[in-house]
Amino acid sequence: MQQADLILYPEWAFTAHPSNNSPYGDCLQKPGIAIQAGRIVDIADKAEIQTKWHSDHSEEHPGKVLLPGFVNAHCHAAMTLLRGIANDLPLMDWLEGHIWPAEGNHVDAEFVRDGSLLACAEMIRGGTTCFNDMYFFPEATIEAALAAGIRVSAGIIAIDFPSAYAQQPEQYLEQGLATLAEHKAHDRVKMMFAPHAPYTVGDPLFKSIIEADKAQRLGCHIHLHETAFEVSSAEQETGTRPFQRLLQLGLLNEQTVAVHMTQLNEQEIQQCGSLGINIAHCPESNLKLASGIAPIHALLSAGANVAIGTDGAASNNDLDMLSELRSASLLAKAQSQDATALSAAQTLQMATYNGAKALGWEAETGSIAIGKSADLQLIDLNRIETQPCYDPVAQVVYSASRDQITDVWCQGQQLMQERQLTTLNENELLATAQAWHEKIST
Amino acid sequence: MQQADLILYPEWAFTAHPSNNSPYGDCLQKPGIAIQAGRIVDIADKAEIQTKWHSDHSEEHPGKVLLPGFVNAHCHAAMTLLRGIANDLPLMDWLEGHIWPAEGNHVDAEFVRDGSLLACAEMIRGGTTCFNDMYFFPEATIEAALAAGIRVSAGIIAIDFPSAYAQQPEQYLEQGLATLAEHKAHDRVKMMFAPHAPYTVGDPLFKSIIEADKAQRLGCHIHLHETAFEVSSAEQETGTRPFQRLLQLGLLNEQTVAVHMTQLNEQEIQQCGSLGINIAHCPESNLKLASGIAPIHALLSAGANVAIGTDGAASNNDLDMLSELRSASLLAKAQSQDATALSAAQTLQMATYNGAKALGWEAETGSIAIGKSADLQLIDLNRIETQPCYDPVAQVVYSASRDQITDVWCQGQQLMQERQLTTLNENELLATAQAWHEKIST
Repeated sequence: MQQADLILYPEWAFTAHPSNNSPYGDCLQKPGIAIQAGRIVDIADKAEIQTKWHSDHSEEHPGKVLLPGFVNAHCHAAMTLLRGIANDLPLMDWLEGHIWPAEGNHVDAEFVRDGSLLACAEMIRGGTTCFNDMYFFPEATIEAALAAGIRVSAGIIAIDFPSAYAQQPEQYLEQGLATLAEHKAHDRVKMMFAPHAPYTVGDPLFKSIIEADKAQRLGCHIHLHETAFEVSSAEQETGTRPFQRLLQLGLLNEQTVAVHMTQLNEQEIQQCGSLGINIAHCPESNLKLASGIAPIHALLSAGANVAIGTDGAASNNDLDMLSELRSASLLAKAQSQDATALSAAQTLQMATYNGAKALGWEAETGSIAIGKSADLQLIDLNRIETQPCYDPVAQVVYSASRDQITDVWCQGQQLMQERQLTTLNENELLATAQAWHEKIST
Repeated sequence: MQQADLILYPEWAFTAHPSNNSPYGDCLQKPGIAIQAGRIVDIADKAEIQTKWHSDHSEEHPGKVLLPGFVNAHCHAAMTLLRGIANDLPLMDWLEGHIWPAEGNHVDAEFVRDGSLLACAEMIRGGTTCFNDMYFFPEATIEAALAAGIRVSAGIIAIDFPSAYAQQPEQYLEQGLATLAEHKAHDRVKMMFAPHAPYTVGDPLFKSIIEADKAQRLGCHIHLHETAFEVSSAEQETGTRPFQRLLQLGLLNEQTVAVHMTQLNEQEIQQCGSLGINIAHCPESNLKLASGIAPIHALLSAGANVAIGTDGAASNNDLDMLSELRSASLLAKAQSQDATALSAAQTLQMATYNGAKALGWEAETGSIAIGKSADLQLIDLNRIETQPCYDPVAQVVYSASRDQITDVWCQGQQLMQERQLTTLNENELLATAQAWHEKIST
């Protein structure tokens, strides 16, 4: 008998890992999953696991399905402190009239740390174990993620305008690279270059990023073709669509996470596929700001890697990956006029494995596979809302709510146990949110 | 001091009742709501209520918002027993290949009662206090709703095909009217004629319904223009669109609840407005079956009354009104390319007051107003997922999940208290669902 730190016996496990049976992953019945030193060391039938592995800590989870932790492919965690501060407005009114002024008055390292801690709590309670972030003071977001115990891909934010974080374009890169140097040894932390958007970043700063990335190979996380206005105004001013401008600059490749992408012509969809670009699809934010609906089904058919992100809580207004992936699946069916588009299994894979792949982290996280980090969540389907259960994968995607997520692990560390957070203190976070509310409202 | 059965002191109350301040309702800060003999007898500032009313049962609810109970404007409650039995399929494949065969094998009065009880439990847990149903054996659905303590508008189902419930078209009406006669004295029960759809009901049966409704004045609940195929095949076979056919028959008026309506031309949208037709918008079911997106913003502008329904759990796959109304708001913004479309307050009113109006029940339920039935729900916003809270109405619509609904009353009777059902036994319902699962799967 080999010794494991933890053995889980759920009713089902959905791997989200490509297999001979399905490119989207297998749904295993009555499996056992053995975990040792933070990694998945065996996956087999319960009976087989019981003959091979022993642990002082093995858990039976009847009625529950084990899934990989969600990978939130696009987030502004700190903006959770601005949750719902302005609603029912188009993107530019929302940004210029509300978000940028509030940020100008309040954003500092403390705001980012406190907002990111609140975001991490919400994400863990929603089954997310990894997020791709873009915000000022990324060192504070990393600090929060480390305290919370989840993975973060933090952005080396870059924008042509001064902020409380940096005054000059080049200073954004310098500070971000200093943060990277400080944290790169930590195996739960990554960083990507994160130029805000084509309309806030000029060619010189893009060229500096491309130059710096020749050495770093971090890849690039950017808002792109979010709205029709973004595309049409660039075309009017320069004669070039932003996607083509970035392509010509050499910014778009298989290490790019292009966020939103609601406005794409057929040529651009094909280019996304041939270049292997990663799309961070944020359907609820795009709907709420009336930005449009990204052509996900066409992008997947073209060969692009499509992941799912919540965007920030100031626009969405939550960090609920389960709701977001359901919206992604339902919208893709309507948009493609094909009810078979984005099956439940494929959608779950987008919210897990595809997200990890977008961040270059698929060797570590995003699916249940031997050798990978134990980044896991349990969802209880033995509830009024998900019974009877003919198909656990469909039940997760189309019926379950995030409160049915009972337990979450990252690197084998349990971050939530029967709905109780282990690394973060909910009451403290609520009090901190309340204090920021009072400060920001006055 | 006047005596009340119950006084509630929530942090906020959103009335959903048209007022001089807003057609969509007011958000009251620190109000008191006095309830006597199942009715709301006073609404005022907390301090004023405290000087006027005394009760042995008054409750403080800091951090919570009081809302009218949701009105689910279209449901097939019994189909909860078929939740998720077939997914990722277009409407006719789903109906003909899966749903109708399963129904043929299993539907009887016991199936309908058990499925409806499970549905009522899910609806109460999701803040719904009234639902508009269409299914076989409506007497069993009424029995379940009475046991659960919520309001039901049950359908006098009519279809040209035989079923376990009735053999002949006219028999459907006779049985339904007998059920009506039995239950019409109960003030939590209504019935409407419920011809299934234009493609399953011929003109003779429609004419019988119109004739019978001259005496009854029940109104008519019908699936209409759900898919492009429904409309195009009728046009090919008869030269007439189903909407125009029903209009010519005289079936469409301010007592009609037309469900789905994803395929409407400009003339039909205007006719919906001028006739005062009620639309039961079921956005998630329409997306999932790739049926389309109803032009809600245009229908509202034309003057139609738009309510929100979940459809049955076999297609949706849940009865979650909070998720459904969020989808309605987000989709309307994207579809109309206007982020200001369907504000949070207007959307909440659609899910409450407009639903009651569609059922002819707005004098009794659907808003918080003096004299109305105490059909209420409390939502706790003091959670990680909804903090900080700048705007409680936006927070309910765009951030909260149904598990934050803590307490529900119908006619002043408490149906859920701190997430515990009072009229139904969850464990018994889960066991019953499991038994049906085994029977239906074999």
